[in-house]
Amino acid sequence: MADIGVALLGLGRAGSFHLASIGVIDGIVLRQVFDTDADRAADVAAATGATTALSGAAAVAASDVDAVVVASPTLTHHDHVIAALAAGKPVLSEKPLGTTLADIDACFDGAAAAQVPLLVAFQRRFDPSFAAVARAAHAGEAGELQFIRSVSRDNPVPSLDYIATSCGIFHDCVVHDFDMVCHVAQSAPVEVHAFASSFIAGIGALGDVDNVAVSLRFESGLLATIDVNRSSAYGYDQRLEVFGSDGMLQVENRPLAAAPCSDDHGLLQPRIDWSFPTRYADAYRLEFVHFIDCVRGDAVPEIGADDVRRSHLVANAAEASLESGVVVALDA
Amino acid sequence: MADIGVALLGLGRAGSFHLASIGVIDGIVLRQVFDTDADRAADVAAATGATTALSGAAAVAASDVDAVVVASPTLTHHDHVIAALAAGKPVLSEKPLGTTLADIDACFDGAAAAQVPLLVAFQRRFDPSFAAVARAAHAGEAGELQFIRSVSRDNPVPSLDYIATSCGIFHDCVVHDFDMVCHVAQSAPVEVHAFASSFIAGIGALGDVDNVAVSLRFESGLLATIDVNRSSAYGYDQRLEVFGSDGMLQVENRPLAAAPCSDDHGLLQPRIDWSFPTRYADAYRLEFVHFIDCVRGDAVPEIGADDVRRSHLVANAAEASLESGVVVALDA
Amino acid sequence: MADIGVALLGLGRAGSFHLASIGVIDGIVLRQVFDTDADRAADVAAATGATTALSGAAAVAASDVDAVVVASPTLTHHDHVIAALAAGKPVLSEKPLGTTLADIDACFDGAAAAQVPLLVAFQRRFDPSFAAVARAAHAGEAGELQFIRSVSRDNPVPSLDYIATSCGIFHDCVVHDFDMVCHVAQSAPVEVHAFASSFIAGIGALGDVDNVAVSLRFESGLLATIDVNRSSAYGYDQRLEVFGSDGMLQVENRPLAAAPCSDDHGLLQPRIDWSFPTRYADAYRLEFVHFIDCVRGDAVPEIGADDVRRSHLVANAAEASLESGVVVALDA
Amino acid sequence: MADIGVALLGLGRAGSFHLASIGVIDGIVLRQVFDTDADRAADVAAATGATTALSGAAAVAASDVDAVVVASPTLTHHDHVIAALAAGKPVLSEKPLGTTLADIDACFDGAAAAQVPLLVAFQRRFDPSFAAVARAAHAGEAGELQFIRSVSRDNPVPSLDYIATSCGIFHDCVVHDFDMVCHVAQSAPVEVHAFASSFIAGIGALGDVDNVAVSLRFESGLLATIDVNRSSAYGYDQRLEVFGSDGMLQVENRPLAAAPCSDDHGLLQPRIDWSFPTRYADAYRLEFVHFIDCVRGDAVPEIGADDVRRSHLVANAAEASLESGVVVALDA
Repeated sequence: MADIGVALLGLGRAGSFHLASIGVIDGIVLRQVFDTDADRAADVAAATGATTALSGAAAVAASDVDAVVVASPTLTHHDHVIAALAAGKPVLSEKPLGTTLADIDACFDGAAAAQVPLLVAFQRRFDPSFAAVARAAHAGEAGELQFIRSVSRDNPVPSLDYIATSCGIFHDCVVHDFDMVCHVAQSAPVEVHAFASSFIAGIGALGDVDNVAVSLRFESGLLATIDVNRSSAYGYDQRLEVFGSDGMLQVENRPLAAAPCSDDHGLLQPRIDWSFPTRYADAYRLEFVHFIDCVRGDAVPEIGADDVRRSHLVANAAEASLESGVVVALDA
Repeated sequence: MADIGVALLGLGRAGSFHLASIGVIDGIVLRQVFDTDADRAADVAAATGATTALSGAAAVAASDVDAVVVASPTLTHHDHVIAALAAGKPVLSEKPLGTTLADIDACFDGAAAAQVPLLVAFQRRFDPSFAAVARAAHAGEAGELQFIRSVSRDNPVPSLDYIATSCGIFHDCVVHDFDMVCHVAQSAPVEVHAFASSFIAGIGALGDVDNVAVSLRFESGLLATIDVNRSSAYGYDQRLEVFGSDGMLQVENRPLAAAPCSDDHGLLQPRIDWSFPTRYADAYRLEFVHFIDCVRGDAVPEIGADDVRRSHLVANAAEASLESGVVVALDA
Repeated sequence: MADIGVALLGLGRAGSFHLASIGVIDGIVLRQVFDTDADRAADVAAATGATTALSGAAAVAASDVDAVVVASPTLTHHDHVIAALAAGKPVLSEKPLGTTLADIDACFDGAAAAQVPLLVAFQRRFDPSFAAVARAAHAGEAGELQFIRSVSRDNPVPSLDYIATSCGIFHDCVVHDFDMVCHVAQSAPVEVHAFASSFIAGIGALGDVDNVAVSLRFESGLLATIDVNRSSAYGYDQRLEVFGSDGMLQVENRPLAAAPCSDDHGLLQPRIDWSFPTRYADAYRLEFVHFIDCVRGDAVPEIGADDVRRSHLVANAAEASLESGVVVALDA
Repeated sequence: MADIGVALLGLGRAGSFHLASIGVIDGIVLRQVFDTDADRAADVAAATGATTALSGAAAVAASDVDAVVVASPTLTHHDHVIAALAAGKPVLSEKPLGTTLADIDACFDGAAAAQVPLLVAFQRRFDPSFAAVARAAHAGEAGELQFIRSVSRDNPVPSLDYIATSCGIFHDCVVHDFDMVCHVAQSAPVEVHAFASSFIAGIGALGDVDNVAVSLRFESGLLATIDVNRSSAYGYDQRLEVFGSDGMLQVENRPLAAAPCSDDHGLLQPRIDWSFPTRYADAYRLEFVHFIDCVRGDAVPEIGADDVRRSHLVANAAEASLESGVVVALDA
């Protein structure tokens, strides 16, 4: 089976863990890299044997590239994705695919036209614990679903430069919770309400918030709450709770080592993962493996157009609720 | 120190754990019991040596009674409390003190006029785990408070007869969560939103709900969510999570025995408490001890008029939000 | 049903928790108390309404006494037990019943002659977690038993005066582990080996040890290890592990409150019980309830002559192994 | 920095996880493979681009090989190691280095003569949890060490063919526990005692045992117990407990996912790792990274001749104790 040649656009935080995945997955080879920081691109090229592309467009068009990974700054995703699909190349892209529903639809239309897979990187879907809970919920192990809680607390606080172009906390962070809650629920909410506030100097000044509580109501009577915070002192807190008529399924945090210490203060478990690159290392790798399976035609993307549209619309509704102070209805 | 003579009005569920407390606390003696079920009253009187009163009024007026415990059906609390206070007797009463803010105020006015303590039985305040977390939060151990989550899942489902006169889930159940969240926050929310639904046959028909998600916003930027359910398949689930700038404090459930079993399915911890009488056995006893301290003048009630008014008003706001579908503002 | 009148001999540590049990169990009344500290006896008598006996013999002989509890200093147990049984009174006694097998046999012979129950206070048998594991092991839930580990770490270190008359760590402490391991195994070991050392100033000088590792081999191939220490910095550590062909059953420690705290050091569970009076409070009460059931003829002692002889002989063997440095054989 | 060319001798269980390590560590390349199963060797060569060597000797002598990994059947380790060292190549070898102390010494003498590193694969040393506990113990976080317990329960049972040439459970399995206990203690025991039995059909017939309880006494008064079993129904159980004057350090098992499920039976944590390849995946990789660091001269082997001799001698002593039924002394 021939190696799959990959172009990687963007060599920052997200680019780094895709580089790690490429390094450990058999049957793929990094062929082209692009970053606006030319020195960074040169370093990666030197270490990997890839070619430094002069532009994203050049990278995706290269004849040795069979698949494209978009991990560039948020607002550049859309153009890179469109270009790659136009070149007939399968795409794995960090979210969001753009700032509007039309942007998203344009991307999936592009994938359909090119008849290649487009996978949006909601990596939490591939985390073994989250995936196990979703599977168990879908298999009915909790009975009829009545309540879901998702919590995401980030660490450390991103730079204000990042925040300024992040599309806001609902599209940048909470969208992962919206995706997971709707995925577990296998439906979209009919009503959304959001409270939010800002505790971090600078974020409020940018018109954004860093502390969010969203409530969702589904047609079935299922309710959900999501709470997200940009700054968690004890590490990267990612949990899920699915309550049904027969029981409860949970994703809990886990300490970095199974090595507790007991003294007269009590029993101290080691700290949890400090941030997403380590917490989701397995998920990023499994996501990439799934993408390669899609590229080879052995799978279809587990996250499709309907999923991406759905979480985008819920994020829009939550934003609208926060701005207006009222509950926002969604078409089921 | 002379024994304190107690009258106990109501010998049902709540009456039972007060009987247990009276049995194990030194320096108190049960003198008068009253229940509309005369056989039940006679049985308790025979077992304890107490006198069977012909009415609540007779019980509270008896000359051998120094303090009154009101554990009768919900809608009778108010009259018993008023009568006991009018007789100059200290009162420990199950909540609610009535159905309106005026009812509550009348009770505390009665206590003030009689110069005797009135303690409302928010027993969760006396649970060692909840009390430890509240103390730690007040001591600043979590830093600046940003988010609180309270979860209460009941088990088993009460009878529809009980539900019908329970004043609704917000005043019957969620009021405990409102009290705890506001107690930890040391303030009242400025905005309240509620979603709810019903999964249990019969409860919806009574115009009540059994599945609730409430969001609260406080002036400081602190947010809170509360989720309550009437029927938890895995037992009586009572948790609290307090998130602040420096860390997180939690009340977790605990298994009935520290006796896990490992096999090829995994590690099974024994079930948690099945319902409130065992889960809060310590809290009911400590609450009663505190009441006796108040009767002796050694303490003032830890739950005062402001606390009881506060949780009542938040429950009203949540009810109003559910009915209207909008966010309800409260005066801070 | 008439109240059972109790004489309590010894009002020290063990006497205190028996007093607590008497205070909360229905149908029993403390009638006679005796302690060599007359002031302590007078205080207890005043608080409970009991009579101060001039001697243990007087207490057990009193006509208002139906049952005797022996909680006096270790070396006085035997004479009190013999006297009470001679008076035809049922006895609950702290261990040991004496210093020799003949002492133990004399006691059970006395009970047989008087046709009254004699219960030796191996309270761990009544602890809900230990009892649950023993029941599960007996029910075959772990399959064929292959390995048992028992750990007991005491806290705080008793006084050297206590140690000096404690009959040595094997009979004072490890005997509880021997009893539990043999109870779970439903048999006695055929070989015993012990290593030990002393880290606490003063204990070694008394010819005793404070750190012990005992190994047991049973006829079936079952092996066991027991490790005991007199001084545990993190609290009173009492655990059990039963490994069989189908799985593992464990008794674990539990924190005093289910209230963990997370910060950048990790997640801190509150400390476990500091010492035996709180750790085994339930066990002491349930043990006393069982004794009263035996007195009333509703039960026979769960711990009988064979059990008490067995753990005594194993303790002797462990002592002999430590002294001789060789493995000691026991008749199965 | 030039790539390091590796020869891998043995492509069975141990060979497989070394292959995985080679696949993910930068700067190394597999050049030669050898296995007595020529088909297996050909498959690996085809997948990796390595050359199939005709013998171990040919593999280690190859000019493109800079370092040798020995993962062949137990009794062939010694000759391969000696040959590789004679060829002047650094060696990472599975234990044991032979069946006698002289064998071990000959290997380390060979390494000294060749002035190349020889690392024996006690992979548990590189597991993050075990390493953290050892570091903490060495840093004095538990105070003065008084007791250590190590438990290793294997799963699934190896084939009887493997057992027959495994050198016995003490050298095949318990030696890992001996190494870890002595490493944490930073010394060797002065006395060793062992009980053992066999529950698995066939193992007893081979003169081996599958259930072991070893006790160790150290000069300082430190005691240790080790229990090992060949067949654990609930998965691969690897734990350590280090008790000292100031507290306790533990390595615990961890469930495969942080995804508990609660129902009316209790709370079920997912199963732990089923066997060593997944449990120690990180350790195998980190061990290999350490080996490469040694090859490059950036580190010296963390496990040296003294360590390997020490655990070998303790295993011999435990075997001798089991055979003779007496305690065996070791020179400290």
